[in-house]
Amino acid sequence: MTILILIPAAISVLALLSAYSFNRSVVRKAQGTDRMKELQGYIRSGAFTFMIAEARVMGITMLIIGAILWILFYWEIAVAFWVGSILSMAAGFIGMNAATHANARTTHAAGKSFKDALNVAFSGGSVMGLSVAGLALIGLVIVMLIFRKWFSPATLHIETRYLFGVQSLGVNFIRGALIVSAYSMGASLVALFDRVGGGIYTKAADMAADMVGKVEMHIPEDDPRNPATIADNVGDNVGDVGGLGADLLESFVGAIISVIVMVLYVYVGRGNALLEPLLRKLAPLGLEGHYTWFLAAPLVIVAGGIFSSLLAILYIRFSRRQEGMQAVLMNGTRLAALLTAGTTFVFCWFTPIGMNVFYSVVLGLAAGIAIGFFSEYYTSSNYKPTRELAKMNQSGPAVGVTEGMALGMLSTFLPVLTIAAATIGAYQLGNLPGVAFAAMGMLSFVAMTVAVDTYGPIADNAGGIATMSELPPEVRERTDKLDSIGNTTAAIGKGFAIGSAAFASLGLIAAFMWSAIGSADKVLPPQLPIVGQISAEFSPSGSPIMMGAFVIAGLMLGAMVPYVFSALLIRGVSRTADVLVQEIRRQFKENPKIMTGEEMADYKKCITITAHGGLNKMFLPALITVITPIVFGLIFGRYALGGFLIGALLSAIQLAIYCANAGGAMDNAKKYIEEGHYGGKDSEAHVAAVTGDTVGDPLKDTVGPSLDILIKLMSVIALVFASLFPLYPVFL
Amino acid sequence: MTILILIPAAISVLALLSAYSFNRSVVRKAQGTDRMKELQGYIRSGAFTFMIAEARVMGITMLIIGAILWILFYWEIAVAFWVGSILSMAAGFIGMNAATHANARTTHAAGKSFKDALNVAFSGGSVMGLSVAGLALIGLVIVMLIFRKWFSPATLHIETRYLFGVQSLGVNFIRGALIVSAYSMGASLVALFDRVGGGIYTKAADMAADMVGKVEMHIPEDDPRNPATIADNVGDNVGDVGGLGADLLESFVGAIISVIVMVLYVYVGRGNALLEPLLRKLAPLGLEGHYTWFLAAPLVIVAGGIFSSLLAILYIRFSRRQEGMQAVLMNGTRLAALLTAGTTFVFCWFTPIGMNVFYSVVLGLAAGIAIGFFSEYYTSSNYKPTRELAKMNQSGPAVGVTEGMALGMLSTFLPVLTIAAATIGAYQLGNLPGVAFAAMGMLSFVAMTVAVDTYGPIADNAGGIATMSELPPEVRERTDKLDSIGNTTAAIGKGFAIGSAAFASLGLIAAFMWSAIGSADKVLPPQLPIVGQISAEFSPSGSPIMMGAFVIAGLMLGAMVPYVFSALLIRGVSRTADVLVQEIRRQFKENPKIMTGEEMADYKKCITITAHGGLNKMFLPALITVITPIVFGLIFGRYALGGFLIGALLSAIQLAIYCANAGGAMDNAKKYIEEGHYGGKDSEAHVAAVTGDTVGDPLKDTVGPSLDILIKLMSVIALVFASLFPLYPVFL
Repeated sequence: MTILILIPAAISVLALLSAYSFNRSVVRKAQGTDRMKELQGYIRSGAFTFMIAEARVMGITMLIIGAILWILFYWEIAVAFWVGSILSMAAGFIGMNAATHANARTTHAAGKSFKDALNVAFSGGSVMGLSVAGLALIGLVIVMLIFRKWFSPATLHIETRYLFGVQSLGVNFIRGALIVSAYSMGASLVALFDRVGGGIYTKAADMAADMVGKVEMHIPEDDPRNPATIADNVGDNVGDVGGLGADLLESFVGAIISVIVMVLYVYVGRGNALLEPLLRKLAPLGLEGHYTWFLAAPLVIVAGGIFSSLLAILYIRFSRRQEGMQAVLMNGTRLAALLTAGTTFVFCWFTPIGMNVFYSVVLGLAAGIAIGFFSEYYTSSNYKPTRELAKMNQSGPAVGVTEGMALGMLSTFLPVLTIAAATIGAYQLGNLPGVAFAAMGMLSFVAMTVAVDTYGPIADNAGGIATMSELPPEVRERTDKLDSIGNTTAAIGKGFAIGSAAFASLGLIAAFMWSAIGSADKVLPPQLPIVGQISAEFSPSGSPIMMGAFVIAGLMLGAMVPYVFSALLIRGVSRTADVLVQEIRRQFKENPKIMTGEEMADYKKCITITAHGGLNKMFLPALITVITPIVFGLIFGRYALGGFLIGALLSAIQLAIYCANAGGAMDNAKKYIEEGHYGGKDSEAHVAAVTGDTVGDPLKDTVGPSLDILIKLMSVIALVFASLFPLYPVFL
Repeated sequence: MTILILIPAAISVLALLSAYSFNRSVVRKAQGTDRMKELQGYIRSGAFTFMIAEARVMGITMLIIGAILWILFYWEIAVAFWVGSILSMAAGFIGMNAATHANARTTHAAGKSFKDALNVAFSGGSVMGLSVAGLALIGLVIVMLIFRKWFSPATLHIETRYLFGVQSLGVNFIRGALIVSAYSMGASLVALFDRVGGGIYTKAADMAADMVGKVEMHIPEDDPRNPATIADNVGDNVGDVGGLGADLLESFVGAIISVIVMVLYVYVGRGNALLEPLLRKLAPLGLEGHYTWFLAAPLVIVAGGIFSSLLAILYIRFSRRQEGMQAVLMNGTRLAALLTAGTTFVFCWFTPIGMNVFYSVVLGLAAGIAIGFFSEYYTSSNYKPTRELAKMNQSGPAVGVTEGMALGMLSTFLPVLTIAAATIGAYQLGNLPGVAFAAMGMLSFVAMTVAVDTYGPIADNAGGIATMSELPPEVRERTDKLDSIGNTTAAIGKGFAIGSAAFASLGLIAAFMWSAIGSADKVLPPQLPIVGQISAEFSPSGSPIMMGAFVIAGLMLGAMVPYVFSALLIRGVSRTADVLVQEIRRQFKENPKIMTGEEMADYKKCITITAHGGLNKMFLPALITVITPIVFGLIFGRYALGGFLIGALLSAIQLAIYCANAGGAMDNAKKYIEEGHYGGKDSEAHVAAVTGDTVGDPLKDTVGPSLDILIKLMSVIALVFASLFPLYPVFL
């Protein structure tokens, strides 16, 4: 293993060095006029102020949770948790730093040519993509090397720890599995805070700026007279850049560690009465005989993905084409996927890993690309659904909103079908580990996805700076073209994030179920029902697990959590926006010189209000995510908790796709009308579409992405705390 | 059994006779002015035209499906199916007949006093309530008596039928279970058509009338100049009366037959290797030894519920109080629940049924009342949530709609918690049959619920007729008061419908799982895996069923169906409304004399357009509901189908509660603003709230109620066709 692990270690260092060099290449570009420097300064300082305040809240939370893990388990678990959370925070900061460097520089480059602007924006995105993947992998490699003792066959067994020295509070677990799970949990928790806090920030600023600026004062988007315009641009960075980076980092980590946990349990399972029959099913994978190979496999395969992404990024960066850049970006993504398949093939073919793993990985890759395409189909105005939605807006805002909702609901069909089919395929290839490998495959070229995705908000910001600095219109036209390419790639990225979240969660839930069963084999605390009873409960002669009342109750309650979570997020946005609206109105009223352009609006006040809203409203949803699986598990036990997680997953997938596509389509329907269809700007259809877009904003940029993290975080928390839960409800 | 069955037979006849006498008492009332007679005539003929056209579509569908059942199984199955569907249609017609008799007469009575008006409206509602319960029960009793051979212990066994004489296509089932399931399926299918067709009709007319009348022409609701006003009033009858009646009839039937099917399988299960262990778990119920008692129990218990409802209806009808009628209605509902508990207690105490069944029934009753209360809390402007929503409308339509959505999502919390808790409680009392008994308990006093629920649309119509006939304002004030009481009771009724749907579906799914397992015990067609393999698949040592890929895929695909179904319904409404809007605009434009009141609008044209929309757009959603479980079952087998049904149930419960409460709260927030809060009528908040109300309309009156039926229909279809499906996916 020690030799094999050199590959991921070397490649993650390479990715980080490339990120550093891309960052330098961005910083060396010219920043443009003083006005542009000033605006960039505002955005940077606003974004950093928020991220630092957020980091402070997270820091305290992480310290406390880490301490609890230390007390409950061992110090290694706490350290792994801290490493995961620090790296996740770092990814957000590095990406946001690059993005806020790149925005004004992209505007300046757009003064020269479109290709120059694209190069700067894409380099900024690449910093983020490579950092996310590099940090996630190097962190995992370091944690596994430091604590290599707990992954070595010699010490690998199910151990029992007596909590607070009380024998009846003994819990069973594999220490290595707990270490990687805690690492993943740290990354996920930070991602949730980033996504929820950033999501509320960005959409509250966006909604309020539009509601007062566009609707009441009739000034265009990004007009410097609007007091919330800087807050809106800050939001793009903390939400769409910082949030996205942390989000995909934790998906990536989750997918990798679910494979590792299963490999550990398979190894320990030899001779384990409960796991042995499962192992027999894994014969096609050939997993049992090659522990070390399989332990290193996920790390090596994703290292291949990172390397492939790096090559694809270089292909895009140094492409000489001046036109058709959308095609170049799409080709780059396809190239990354293809090269990843290639490196995986080589690894699987020449090692004992075997082809079933390769097929699983390819299945994941293909499913991810398909889901990405469906998102584009439903939300891009190049296709029928969004055009029809634009047309229906002629009948007023109520019809526009209902039709948008219907479109979102309908758009669950193809992605869910794809996820279900890929799940079945991967399961046939290698049981539950097959599903985990597929999830990992889907995420393996995450560096490329993030790079392409982050470039969108940079272009968006560049356009804002162009308008605010009153540059010639052709600059704004070029950044708008950049932004529109970014929108398509962002839609694909969003579909990808949802698909991978579903898969990664399935992998994590599967790992949870295995560890829940596997660790039950040892001595159990006396108050728990004996293992022998499981058979009676599970066999078809007893009630199959699905129909047991506790599992049913778990499914129902789990399915309810995403709804409550989403409701809190939407309220967080609309109520923060409400406060901000009052403030913008106040500024316009008390200082008429703002509208004439004689005096500057008070941007800082708006930034403070939005940041305050984001920080305050992110806590309750985060708490619900962390607390509910633990409380439910403690009361109802491991099997019912499996139901709870599955219920949450089901509900969250549908809601996330619905929210992302309804919001995306409403946004693009508005843009399509603005292009001159159905009456164009300021027509009745446009007024209706603006309302629709505002309704869709929190759905697509706050709720949808946060749901992706919700399900993974709940699953990984269950995985970490599994051993503390009884098998059956405590009151039985 | 023959003696015991006299009780339900006698009580259902009593209910039908009472319904007849209530109907006569309504018809004998005076109809009012010629204008009122004319309007009533329009509404009646519009409603009947639609219902008859709908019945024609349903008739053909039922004939075809019945023929398929005949070919696949036996003629008895087809007959039971037809009886169920005819009675369900009859319930819709009888109720609508009474309602369209009662509307103008309520208006006329309101000219005298409030109490008189309430008496007429409530009598009209009682006709519907008693007919629904009476028809459902008498039909079931008749079917069970005609085919009593297949319920007698002597012939009760799992039989095998070779489809088309081909041995490898042999299917196993209990004929009695299939007969009652087919009866229930007939009732459910009609209910789905009624709910979907009526729901699209009523909301398309409502939306279009509001969008042109209120928003564009600034004429009030129910203004006779509006060409769509009659269509709107027709919609109240076909959607809220006809649809509701058929809906609760099928819930009622579903809950009863799920108990019956389980009793049959328990009896047959003696000596059955697969069911035997389950039977042991039922020891607390004492079910095994008392087959006949338990077979009759559901019929006798619901007969007690009908009798109790009749007494409560008489209490309300002959209450001498002039004021505080809301309290009288609420007391009546409570009285019905209490008396039902009483009759159930007597039956359980003095027979071998035992107290666990009583406790289950009471648990169901209590849960139903609690869920009803939660609906009221979230949607009534007497409480904080709706008042806050009204306040948020001040920030414009986008915030109003998003806040309404958030409220709906948040409102899933308490009802789902209640359903989960009641499921656990009932399961502890008597395993899965306990859950089925609880569902039945919740629905046992359905006659009362329907009576109270139907009275709302009658009062609504009466108000419309008052305005259209230009009666003195105090008449409209009285009918408005009547309507406002009706709104509260309707909110409770809607919560009740959702709660009971969830429970009835659980009962049906449980019955499906039992029959899927129970009938697998006999000789299986050779192409199917042998039963012995189930153990390996289900035991915790193999992957527990929940984690099997096919069950997971089933859960995911099942959870997706309600979204696609809802999307089609919303589109059906908005697109029909769109066509109608064009027509109303055309009439106003081409004939200016309509606005001056010199000429009548062309009501018929609007009615035809709406009916056309309702009929055309109901087919695809209905098809999806019928086809998907069959196709899924045929491909993926019984176990995965269990996952599919559970997935659909989970998704549908959350969506239905969300839609019903979001729509209800948006409606009442608008009314609250109209009462003079936050600027009152025509303020900015009001304009925003009108948009919110229009968005909420299809959610609360089309999607929510139809989802209730979707899950029950899919479950009962699975139950009927279970024996045709393989155990495992066909391609394994």
